[in-house]
This record gives sequence, structure tokens and C-alpha cells, in this order.
Amino acid sequence: MKKIFPLSKVYSLLEAGPVVMLSTAFKGRNNVMTLSWHTMIDFNPPLVGCVISDRNYTFEAVKKTRECVINIPTLEIAGKAVACGNVSGRRTDKFSVFGLTPEKSAAVKAPSVKECYASLECRLADARLAGKYNLFIFEVVKARVDTSVKDPRTVHHRGGEAFMVAGRTIKIKSKMA
Amino acid sequence: MKKIFPLSKVYSLLEAGPVVMLSTAFKGRNNVMTLSWHTMIDFNPPLVGCVISDRNYTFEAVKKTRECVINIPTLEIAGKAVACGNVSGRRTDKFSVFGLTPEKSAAVKAPSVKECYASLECRLADARLAGKYNLFIFEVVKARVDTSVKDPRTVHHRGGEAFMVAGRTIKIKSKMA
Repeated sequence: MKKIFPLSKVYSLLEAGPVVMLSTAFKGRNNVMTLSWHTMIDFNPPLVGCVISDRNYTFEAVKKTRECVINIPTLEIAGKAVACGNVSGRRTDKFSVFGLTPEKSAAVKAPSVKECYASLECRLADARLAGKYNLFIFEVVKARVDTSVKDPRTVHHRGGEAFMVAGRTIKIKSKMA
Repeated sequence: MKKIFPLSKVYSLLEAGPVVMLSTAFKGRNNVMTLSWHTMIDFNPPLVGCVISDRNYTFEAVKKTRECVINIPTLEIAGKAVACGNVSGRRTDKFSVFGLTPEKSAAVKAPSVKECYASLECRLADARLAGKYNLFIFEVVKARVDTSVKDPRTVHHRGGEAFMVAGRTIKIKSKMA
């Protein structure tokens, strides 16, 4: 069950580099794609940069609706996440085909993915580099996280069919800090 | 021992989201900082976006020299990587203080970090968003990787002092692909 999560801590969900599922609602249809090319840009309000190819159906959906949800899957649904990354939403209802549940979001019309442990509701903040680099900068306006998930087994793309599953969490103190 | 690595596969080193160490040579001094805010932007030539705060000494070094090396550390030197992230290079020779070895790079004047298993030599490709977002886009012009390191134990920041150590690598095929 997801609860509201402080925006100032959103960076801790994303900077480990998990595969994410980006969901949109466009022309009356829900859609979801999978990507690994994202980075935090600023802490608070949290800004996130995402590369979305202009060959993807989501590119137009994001440009037109100016919102999306960045959902973070774990190992349990990694197969579905990868499948969503390999088929276009132009002609496929991926939520239905892959057995994912659209969940009402709190601040945007785009649906969240219920099966993901975290959902970051975003508004498009800057599309200046969308033309040249397919790079969109989103502001996270609401974050909802299932905080019962400790050490989430996020998946991290190593190229091709290879994915690294999140290992153990350790503490590293800096002697100089 | 690092060997030349194909530029078209550089994405597989970075998109899992590892902590990286970015090294520069500026005003006759080597320096290195640590960051987690990076993303692939394009495959080939590989473009990488990195957020470098304008409070960091490296910000000016990159702007002026227009080059750097993105080095990828593993668990063995994670403590040094974190330490490098918590002190400024303005008054500290971090290579010396933290026992890191500057290694001659092949295509840029900035040194590589010998103790890292991968070093991606970069030229600054676009600084248009450096002013507003501290976002630099680099082109990787030469990649050198110790390919004897299988399943590298990269470290991934989970916020504060928490770091996730890369777990096992699995294969996920998409039924739809």
C-alpha cells in the first residue's frame, strides 16, 4: 500500500539507477513504457531528466499531456517491465496484455502502476532538449511509496537481456564528512 | 588491466546507475569528484548527461577544459569514492590524500583513476543546460575497461550513507520481442 512520501527524499528512490515504468494517459488511453535513461537533476522540488525516444508513442503523449508517472518496479514484475519495453503502445493496451493495474494518481491524470512499489507523479518542466536529445525534464509533484518495502529489489539494466538485481544495502561513512 | 572497449556498448556500463568518479586536470592539478546523477543520452557516439553542482570545483574545471573522465568504481574502493564526494578539490589533492592513482588517459588530458575498473574518456558536447540545471552533456570518445571483471560490484546510492551493492545478474527475455 503506497503512502505519501516526502518530495525531498525522492532522490533516494531514483539515483541508484533502477529500471522505471513511465505511464501516461493520452487520447483516452492509458499506456506505459520502460526506460533506464533517467537522472535526478535537482533535489527539491525534485527534478528528473528522462530520455524518451521520439520513435516511442510516449514521446507524443508526454509532449501533449505534459505529465506522466514514473513508477519503480521490483524483481517480482521485472518480466512485465521488460515486456512493456519491447512493444509499442500505439496498437497495444499494455496494462491489459501484461496484467498491470492502472491506479488512480493523486495529482495527475496519468495512471500509476499499482504493482510498482513507488509512483512519482510528474509534470513536464522543460522540453527544451526534447528536440535534440529526446530529453525531458519532469518535476515530481507527488510521490507515493510502499514504505513497507525495505531494500527494494529494483532491477538495473546491464545491456541486452542482462539485468542486475539490487543487492544488499550497506552504510558508508566518510571520514572526511 | 583496462582494454579498449567498444563505444557502442558504453551504455551497458552506465545505465545500471553506478556511483561514478569524475576526474579532471585543471590548472596543472588532477582532481576527482563523485556523483550519481548521470544518464545515458544516446548510444553511438555515446552521450552521457552529468549533473555537476556549480558549487563544486569540478564545475569550473569541466567548463574550462571541456573534458573529463568518468570512472566506475566497485565495492573495493567504495569508501574512497564516498570520501572523494565529501571534500572539495579546491584545497585538497584527493588523489594523494585518498591513495588513488592517476593513470594516463588515451584521448584526453584528464587522468583516469587506475583503481576503477572502467574509464570513459569524455569531451564536453553541450553545456547549454549547465547554467540552469548544472547539466553537462559529454561525448565518450574512448572507453577502457577491465573486462576480466565479470558482474562488477558497482555501488548505487540509496540516499544519505546508504549504498546498494550490485547483486546478481539475471537474463530477462521478452516474450514479445
